[in-house]
Amino acid sequence: MMDDYVFYDCLTAPSPRRARIFIAEKGLAIPTVQVDLRHKEQLGEAYKAINPRCTVPALKLPDGRVLGDNASIARYLEEIRPDPPLMGRDPVEKAVVAEWNAIAESDGLLAMAEVIRNSLPGMKGRALTGPKDYDQIPELAERGRARIGNFFELLDRRLSEQAYLGGEAFSVADITAFVVIEFAGWVKLVPDENHSALRSWYEAVSLRPSAKV
Amino acid sequence: MMDDYVFYDCLTAPSPRRARIFIAEKGLAIPTVQVDLRHKEQLGEAYKAINPRCTVPALKLPDGRVLGDNASIARYLEEIRPDPPLMGRDPVEKAVVAEWNAIAESDGLLAMAEVIRNSLPGMKGRALTGPKDYDQIPELAERGRARIGNFFELLDRRLSEQAYLGGEAFSVADITAFVVIEFAGWVKLVPDENHSALRSWYEAVSLRPSAKV
Repeated sequence: MMDDYVFYDCLTAPSPRRARIFIAEKGLAIPTVQVDLRHKEQLGEAYKAINPRCTVPALKLPDGRVLGDNASIARYLEEIRPDPPLMGRDPVEKAVVAEWNAIAESDGLLAMAEVIRNSLPGMKGRALTGPKDYDQIPELAERGRARIGNFFELLDRRLSEQAYLGGEAFSVADITAFVVIEFAGWVKLVPDENHSALRSWYEAVSLRPSAKV
Repeated sequence: MMDDYVFYDCLTAPSPRRARIFIAEKGLAIPTVQVDLRHKEQLGEAYKAINPRCTVPALKLPDGRVLGDNASIARYLEEIRPDPPLMGRDPVEKAVVAEWNAIAESDGLLAMAEVIRNSLPGMKGRALTGPKDYDQIPELAERGRARIGNFFELLDRRLSEQAYLGGEAFSVADITAFVVIEFAGWVKLVPDENHSALRSWYEAVSLRPSAKV
Protein backbone atom coordinates (compact mmCIF):
# COMPACT_ATOMS: atom_id res chain seq x y z
CA MET A 1 0.00 0.00 0.00
CA MET A 2 2.82 2.43 0.75
CA ASP A 3 5.30 1.46 -1.98
CA ASP A 4 5.36 4.98 -3.37
CA TYR A 5 6.51 6.49 -0.06
CA VAL A 6 10.09 6.70 1.26
CA PHE A 7 10.96 6.66 4.94
CA TYR A 8 14.34 8.22 5.86
CA ASP A 9 15.67 6.48 8.92
CA CYS A 10 18.78 5.89 11.01
CA LEU A 11 18.89 2.74 13.12
CA THR A 12 21.13 4.21 15.82
CA ALA A 13 19.26 7.45 16.62
CA PRO A 14 16.32 8.08 18.97
CA SER A 15 14.12 10.34 16.81
CA PRO A 16 13.73 8.00 13.82
CA ARG A 17 13.17 5.12 16.23
CA ARG A 18 10.03 6.89 17.46
CA ALA A 19 8.67 7.01 13.89
CA ARG A 20 9.75 3.42 13.20
CA ILE A 21 7.81 2.12 16.19
CA PHE A 22 4.78 4.24 15.23
CA ILE A 23 4.84 2.76 11.70
CA ALA A 24 5.13 -0.76 13.09
CA GLU A 25 2.21 -0.21 15.48
CA LYS A 26 0.11 0.84 12.49
CA GLY A 27 1.07 -2.36 10.72
CA LEU A 28 2.59 -0.45 7.80
CA ALA A 29 5.60 -1.36 5.67
CA ILE A 30 7.29 1.61 3.98
CA PRO A 31 10.36 1.48 1.72
CA THR A 32 13.19 2.78 3.89
CA VAL A 33 16.50 4.55 3.26
CA GLN A 34 19.14 4.59 5.99
CA VAL A 35 20.85 7.96 6.47
CA ASP A 36 24.36 7.58 7.85
CA LEU A 37 24.46 10.07 10.73
CA ARG A 38 27.83 8.78 11.87
CA HIS A 39 29.38 10.09 8.66
CA LYS A 40 27.22 13.25 8.69
CA GLU A 41 25.26 12.24 5.60
CA GLN A 42 22.32 14.31 6.93
CA LEU A 43 24.38 17.48 6.44
CA GLY A 44 25.30 16.73 2.80
CA GLU A 45 23.65 18.39 -0.17
CA ALA A 46 21.74 15.26 -1.23
CA TYR A 47 19.90 14.90 2.05
CA LYS A 48 19.54 18.64 2.53
CA ALA A 49 17.54 18.67 -0.72
CA ILE A 50 15.16 16.16 0.89
CA ASN A 51 14.94 17.70 4.36
CA PRO A 52 16.50 21.18 4.65
CA ARG A 53 16.48 20.86 8.45
CA CYS A 54 19.02 18.00 8.08
CA THR A 55 17.25 15.72 10.52
CA VAL A 56 15.74 12.23 10.48
CA PRO A 57 13.07 10.92 10.44
CA ALA A 58 11.52 12.18 7.22
CA LEU A 59 8.74 10.74 5.08
CA LYS A 60 8.51 11.42 1.35
CA LEU A 61 4.93 11.32 0.06
CA PRO A 62 3.94 10.01 -3.40
CA ASP A 63 3.66 13.58 -4.73
CA GLY A 64 7.23 14.37 -3.65
CA ARG A 65 6.41 16.48 -0.61
CA VAL A 66 8.41 15.63 2.50
CA LEU A 67 7.28 15.50 6.12
CA GLY A 68 10.36 16.30 8.19
CA ASP A 69 9.76 15.36 11.82
CA ASN A 70 7.92 13.07 14.19
CA ALA A 71 5.07 15.53 14.76
CA SER A 72 4.10 15.61 11.09
CA ILE A 73 4.74 11.93 10.34
CA ALA A 74 2.62 10.73 13.26
CA ARG A 75 -0.21 13.16 12.50
CA TYR A 76 -0.28 12.18 8.83
CA LEU A 77 -0.19 8.42 9.41
CA GLU A 78 -2.89 8.69 12.09
CA GLU A 79 -5.13 10.40 9.52
CA ILE A 80 -4.60 8.03 6.62
CA ARG A 81 -4.48 4.90 8.79
CA PRO A 82 -6.69 5.55 11.83
CA ASP A 83 -6.50 1.97 13.17
CA PRO A 84 -5.20 1.21 15.65
CA PRO A 85 -5.53 4.74 17.05
CA LEU A 86 -2.25 5.98 18.57
CA MET A 87 -3.25 9.60 19.25
CA GLY A 88 -6.45 9.17 21.25
CA ARG A 89 -10.01 8.11 20.49
CA ASP A 90 -12.14 11.05 21.69
CA PRO A 91 -11.51 14.76 22.30
CA VAL A 92 -10.28 14.39 25.87
CA GLU A 93 -8.07 11.37 25.15
CA LYS A 94 -6.60 13.11 22.09
CA ALA A 95 -5.77 16.07 24.30
CA VAL A 96 -4.27 13.97 27.09
CA VAL A 97 -2.13 12.01 24.62
CA ALA A 98 -0.91 15.27 23.05
CA GLU A 99 -0.06 16.60 26.51
CA TRP A 100 1.89 13.52 27.62
CA ASN A 101 3.67 13.33 24.32
CA ALA A 102 4.70 16.97 24.78
CA ILE A 103 5.84 16.22 28.35
CA ALA A 104 7.88 13.23 27.13
CA GLU A 105 9.48 15.49 24.52
CA SER A 106 10.25 18.49 26.73
CA ASP A 107 11.09 16.81 30.04
CA GLY A 108 12.45 13.56 28.60
CA LEU A 109 13.73 13.65 25.05
CA LEU A 110 15.16 17.13 25.29
CA ALA A 111 16.84 16.48 28.64
CA MET A 112 18.30 13.22 27.30
CA ALA A 113 19.60 15.02 24.21
CA GLU A 114 21.09 17.70 26.48
CA VAL A 115 23.07 15.05 28.33
CA ILE A 116 24.24 13.14 25.26
CA ARG A 117 25.01 16.07 22.97
CA ASN A 118 26.74 18.16 25.63
CA SER A 119 28.93 15.44 27.10
CA LEU A 120 29.97 12.82 24.49
CA PRO A 121 33.28 13.70 22.80
CA GLY A 122 31.88 12.59 19.42
CA MET A 123 29.20 15.30 19.68
CA LYS A 124 31.67 18.21 19.99
CA GLY A 125 30.32 21.19 18.03
CA ARG A 126 27.03 19.31 17.48
CA ALA A 127 25.17 20.25 20.66
CA LEU A 128 21.98 20.70 18.63
CA THR A 129 20.67 18.81 15.58
CA GLY A 130 20.32 20.63 12.26
CA PRO A 131 22.52 22.48 9.78
CA LYS A 132 24.13 24.91 12.27
CA ASP A 133 26.94 23.94 14.64
CA TYR A 134 26.68 24.79 18.34
CA ASP A 135 29.33 24.29 21.03
CA GLN A 136 28.78 21.91 23.91
CA ILE A 137 27.74 23.43 27.26
CA PRO A 138 28.87 21.03 30.02
CA GLU A 139 26.48 22.55 32.59
CA LEU A 140 23.62 21.61 30.32
CA ALA A 141 24.65 17.96 30.41
CA GLU A 142 24.64 18.11 34.18
CA ARG A 143 21.24 19.80 34.29
CA GLY A 144 19.92 17.20 31.85
CA ARG A 145 20.89 14.41 34.25
CA ALA A 146 18.87 16.03 37.05
CA ARG A 147 15.91 16.52 34.71
CA ILE A 148 15.92 12.89 33.60
CA GLY A 149 15.72 11.87 37.26
CA ASN A 150 12.66 14.11 37.70
CA PHE A 151 11.18 12.71 34.50
CA PHE A 152 11.47 9.13 35.75
CA GLU A 153 9.67 10.16 38.96
CA LEU A 154 6.90 11.87 37.01
CA LEU A 155 6.38 8.84 34.77
CA ASP A 156 6.39 6.48 37.72
CA ARG A 157 3.68 8.50 39.51
CA ARG A 158 1.58 8.63 36.35
CA LEU A 159 1.96 4.93 35.61
CA SER A 160 1.01 3.89 39.12
CA GLU A 161 -2.43 5.40 38.34
CA GLN A 162 -2.85 4.61 34.63
CA ALA A 163 -1.89 1.67 32.42
CA TYR A 164 -0.43 4.01 29.80
CA LEU A 165 0.60 7.65 29.75
CA GLY A 166 -2.47 8.76 27.79
CA GLY A 167 -4.88 6.65 29.87
CA GLU A 168 -6.16 3.16 29.10
CA ALA A 169 -4.73 2.78 25.61
CA PHE A 170 -1.16 2.56 24.31
CA SER A 171 -0.31 5.74 22.36
CA VAL A 172 2.38 7.84 20.73
CA ALA A 173 3.16 9.29 24.17
CA ASP A 174 4.26 5.85 25.35
CA ILE A 175 6.45 5.49 22.27
CA THR A 176 8.22 8.78 22.98
CA ALA A 177 8.80 8.01 26.67
CA PHE A 178 9.93 4.46 25.87
CA VAL A 179 12.57 5.71 23.40
CA VAL A 180 13.79 8.28 25.94
CA ILE A 181 14.37 5.56 28.51
CA GLU A 182 16.10 3.27 26.01
CA PHE A 183 18.54 5.98 24.96
CA ALA A 184 19.04 7.42 28.46
CA GLY A 185 20.59 4.04 29.18
CA TRP A 186 23.47 5.07 26.89
CA VAL A 187 24.56 7.58 29.50
CA LYS A 188 23.74 5.23 32.39
CA LEU A 189 20.48 6.88 33.41
CA VAL A 190 18.07 4.07 34.27
CA PRO A 191 14.88 3.84 36.34
CA ASP A 192 15.77 2.30 39.72
CA GLU A 193 13.96 0.07 42.19
CA ASN A 194 11.86 3.03 43.42
CA HIS A 195 10.27 3.27 40.00
CA SER A 196 8.39 -0.01 40.00
CA ALA A 197 5.35 1.14 38.00
CA LEU A 198 7.67 2.67 35.40
CA ARG A 199 9.74 -0.49 35.22
CA SER A 200 6.71 -2.75 34.72
CA TRP A 201 5.41 -0.50 31.96
CA TYR A 202 8.83 -0.37 30.31
CA GLU A 203 9.09 -4.16 30.38
CA ALA A 204 5.62 -4.52 28.84
CA VAL A 205 6.30 -1.97 26.09
CA SER A 206 9.63 -3.59 25.23
CA LEU A 207 7.82 -6.90 24.63
CA ARG A 208 5.54 -5.40 21.96
CA PRO A 209 6.46 -6.54 18.44
CA SER A 210 6.91 -2.87 17.44
CA ALA A 211 9.83 -2.52 19.87
CA LYS A 212 11.81 -5.06 17.85
CA VAL A 213 12.02 -2.88 14.72
CA MET B 1 -21.53 27.57 25.76
CA MET B 2 -18.35 27.21 27.83
CA ASP B 3 -19.54 28.63 31.14
CA ASP B 4 -18.68 25.43 32.98
CA TYR B 5 -15.01 25.57 31.93
CA VAL B 6 -12.21 27.57 33.59
CA PHE B 7 -9.20 28.92 31.72
CA TYR B 8 -6.09 29.59 33.84
CA ASP B 9 -4.18 32.45 32.30
CA CYS B 10 -1.48 35.04 32.92
CA LEU B 11 -1.58 38.19 30.82
CA THR B 12 2.18 38.78 30.91
CA ALA B 13 3.48 35.34 29.86
CA PRO B 14 3.98 33.87 26.37
CA SER B 15 2.54 30.35 26.84
CA PRO B 16 -0.95 31.37 28.01
CA ARG B 17 -1.02 34.03 25.30
CA ARG B 18 -0.81 31.26 22.70
CA ALA B 19 -3.92 29.60 24.18
CA ARG B 20 -5.71 32.95 24.54
CA ILE B 21 -5.24 33.74 20.85
CA PHE B 22 -6.34 30.21 19.89
CA ILE B 23 -9.53 30.60 21.96
CA ALA B 24 -10.24 33.99 20.37
CA GLU B 25 -9.72 32.61 16.85
CA LYS B 26 -12.31 29.94 17.65
CA GLY B 27 -14.74 32.64 18.73
CA LEU B 28 -15.03 31.15 22.22
CA ALA B 29 -15.49 32.92 25.54
CA ILE B 30 -14.30 30.96 28.57
CA PRO B 31 -14.42 32.11 32.21
CA THR B 32 -10.84 33.03 33.05
CA VAL B 33 -8.73 33.12 36.20
CA GLN B 34 -5.48 35.08 36.23
CA VAL B 35 -2.56 33.31 37.92
CA ASP B 36 -0.04 35.75 39.35
CA LEU B 37 3.29 34.44 38.08
CA ARG B 38 5.13 37.51 39.35
CA HIS B 39 4.31 36.46 42.91
CA LYS B 40 4.88 32.76 42.15
CA GLU B 41 1.22 31.86 42.62
CA GLN B 42 1.76 28.96 40.17
CA LEU B 43 4.07 27.28 42.71
CA GLY B 44 1.59 27.50 45.60
CA GLU B 45 -0.47 24.58 46.86
CA ALA B 46 -3.75 25.91 45.48
CA TYR B 47 -2.56 26.05 41.90
CA LYS B 48 -0.48 22.89 42.23
CA ALA B 49 -3.73 21.06 43.03
CA ILE B 50 -5.09 22.29 39.68
CA ASN B 51 -1.97 21.74 37.56
CA PRO B 52 0.80 19.75 39.28
CA ARG B 53 3.29 20.91 36.65
CA CYS B 54 2.82 24.49 37.97
CA THR B 55 2.46 26.04 34.54
CA VAL B 56 -0.10 28.12 32.69
CA PRO B 57 -2.12 27.81 30.53
CA ALA B 58 -4.50 25.20 31.90
CA LEU B 59 -8.12 24.45 31.07
CA LYS B 60 -10.49 22.88 33.57
CA LEU B 61 -13.22 20.82 31.91
CA PRO B 62 -16.80 20.57 33.23
CA ASP B 63 -16.04 17.15 34.78
CA GLY B 64 -13.11 18.60 36.74
CA ARG B 65 -10.30 17.17 34.63
CA VAL B 66 -7.58 19.64 33.74
CA LEU B 67 -5.66 20.03 30.49
CA GLY B 68 -2.29 21.46 31.43
CA ASP B 69 -0.53 22.80 28.34
CA ASN B 70 -0.96 24.31 24.91
CA ALA B 71 -0.71 20.96 23.14
CA SER B 72 -3.71 19.50 24.93
CA ILE B 73 -5.81 22.67 25.02
CA ALA B 74 -5.43 23.28 21.28
CA ARG B 75 -6.12 19.64 20.38
CA TYR B 76 -9.23 19.53 22.57
CA LEU B 77 -10.72 22.80 21.34
CA GLU B 78 -10.05 21.85 17.71
CA GLU B 79 -12.06 18.67 18.30
CA ILE B 80 -15.06 20.18 20.04
CA ARG B 81 -15.10 23.35 17.91
CA PRO B 82 -13.72 22.42 14.48
CA ASP B 83 -14.55 25.77 12.84
CA PRO B 84 -12.54 27.66 11.90
CA PRO B 85 -9.90 24.92 11.57
CA LEU B 86 -6.59 25.96 13.14
CA MET B 87 -4.74 22.63 12.85
CA GLY B 88 -5.16 21.81 9.17
CA ARG B 89 -8.00 20.68 6.92
CA ASP B 90 -6.71 17.46 5.34
CA PRO B 91 -4.06 14.87 6.27
CA VAL B 92 -1.14 16.67 4.64
CA GLU B 93 -2.10 20.11 5.93
CA LYS B 94 -2.63 18.71 9.44
CA ALA B 95 0.85 17.22 9.25
CA VAL B 96 2.48 20.40 7.92
CA VAL B 97 0.80 22.51 10.61
CA ALA B 98 1.99 20.07 13.30
CA GLU B 99 5.51 20.25 11.89
CA TRP B 100 5.69 24.05 11.76
CA ASN B 101 4.15 24.34 15.20
CA ALA B 102 6.86 21.98 16.47
CA ILE B 103 9.54 24.05 14.70
CA ALA B 104 8.16 27.26 16.20
CA GLU B 105 8.28 25.60 19.63
CA SER B 106 11.76 24.05 19.41
CA ASP B 107 13.62 26.66 17.37
CA GLY B 108 11.62 29.69 18.48
CA LEU B 109 9.81 29.42 21.81
CA LEU B 110 12.49 27.35 23.49
CA ALA B 111 15.33 29.56 22.25
CA MET B 112 13.44 32.65 23.38
CA ALA B 113 12.84 31.10 26.80
CA GLU B 114 16.55 30.21 26.98
CA VAL B 115 17.46 33.85 26.48
CA ILE B 116 14.91 35.30 28.89
CA ARG B 117 15.20 32.72 31.67
CA ASN B 118 19.00 32.55 31.61
CA SER B 119 19.71 36.27 31.49
CA LEU B 120 17.06 38.33 33.32
CA PRO B 121 17.96 38.92 37.00
CA GLY B 122 14.33 38.29 38.01
CA MET B 123 14.58 34.75 36.63
CA LYS B 124 17.51 33.70 38.84
CA GLY B 125 17.02 30.08 39.94
CA ARG B 126 14.04 29.80 37.57
CA ALA B 127 15.83 28.83 34.35
CA LEU B 128 13.05 26.33 33.59
CA THR B 129 9.31 26.48 34.28
CA GLY B 130 7.75 23.99 36.69
CA PRO B 131 8.04 23.03 40.34
CA LYS B 132 11.83 22.45 40.39
CA ASP B 133 14.40 25.25 40.52
CA TYR B 134 17.29 25.30 38.05
CA ASP B 135 20.22 27.74 37.98
CA GLN B 136 20.75 30.10 35.09
CA ILE B 137 23.36 29.10 32.47
CA PRO B 138 24.61 32.33 30.83
CA GLU B 139 26.00 30.47 27.78
CA LEU B 140 22.50 29.23 27.11
CA ALA B 141 21.20 32.80 26.89
CA GLU B 142 23.92 33.57 24.37
CA ARG B 143 23.18 30.45 22.32
CA GLY B 144 19.47 31.30 22.41
CA ARG B 145 20.20 34.69 20.81
CA ALA B 146 21.99 33.00 17.91
CA ARG B 147 19.15 30.51 17.53
CA ILE B 148 16.49 33.24 17.41
CA GLY B 149 18.43 34.86 14.55
CA ASN B 150 18.37 31.54 12.66
CA PHE B 151 14.68 31.17 13.45
CA PHE B 152 13.86 34.57 11.95
CA GLU B 153 15.75 33.57 8.78
CA LEU B 154 13.89 30.27 8.56
CA LEU B 155 10.49 31.95 8.99
CA ASP B 156 11.36 34.61 6.44
CA ARG B 157 12.29 31.99 3.81
CA ARG B 158 9.12 30.04 4.50
CA LEU B 159 6.88 33.10 4.37
CA SER B 160 8.33 34.30 1.10
CA GLU B 161 6.86 31.11 -0.41
CA GLN B 162 3.65 30.66 1.59
CA ALA B 163 1.06 33.03 3.05
CA TYR B 164 1.16 31.22 6.39
CA LEU B 165 3.51 28.73 8.02
CA GLY B 166 1.17 25.78 7.45
CA GLY B 167 0.37 26.78 3.85
CA GLU B 168 -2.60 28.83 2.64
CA ALA B 169 -4.54 29.03 5.90
CA PHE B 170 -3.79 30.72 9.22
CA SER B 171 -3.09 28.08 11.89
CA VAL B 172 -1.83 27.33 15.37
CA ALA B 173 1.73 27.36 13.96
CA ASP B 174 1.32 31.05 13.10
CA ILE B 175 0.06 31.73 16.62
CA THR B 176 3.13 30.10 18.17
CA ALA B 177 5.60 31.93 15.92
CA PHE B 178 3.79 35.23 16.40
CA VAL B 179 4.00 34.97 20.19
CA VAL B 180 7.71 34.09 19.97
CA ILE B 181 8.39 37.25 17.99
CA GLU B 182 6.32 39.42 20.32
CA PHE B 183 8.19 38.18 23.38
CA ALA B 184 11.64 38.10 21.74
CA GLY B 185 11.17 41.87 21.51
CA TRP B 186 11.51 41.96 25.33
CA VAL B 187 15.17 41.07 24.93
CA LYS B 188 15.58 43.27 21.84
CA LEU B 189 15.53 40.47 19.28
CA VAL B 190 13.50 41.77 16.34
CA PRO B 191 13.24 40.81 12.66
CA ASP B 192 15.25 43.36 10.65
CA GLU B 193 14.94 44.86 7.16
CA ASN B 194 16.29 41.64 5.58
CA HIS B 195 13.22 39.78 6.84
CA SER B 196 10.61 41.53 4.73
CA ALA B 197 8.30 38.54 4.23
CA LEU B 198 8.41 37.83 7.96
CA ARG B 199 7.68 41.48 8.78
CA SER B 200 4.65 41.65 6.44
CA TRP B 201 3.24 38.45 7.93
CA TYR B 202 3.85 39.72 11.47
CA GLU B 203 2.09 42.97 10.69
CA ALA B 204 -0.90 41.11 9.21
CA VAL B 205 -1.19 38.71 12.16
CA SER B 206 -0.96 41.55 14.67
CA LEU B 207 -3.98 43.19 13.00
CA ARG B 208 -6.21 40.15 13.56
CA PRO B 209 -8.80 40.70 16.32
CA SER B 210 -7.39 37.67 18.18
CA ALA B 211 -4.06 39.48 18.68
CA LYS B 212 -5.81 42.09 20.82
CA VAL B 213 -6.77 39.66 23.59
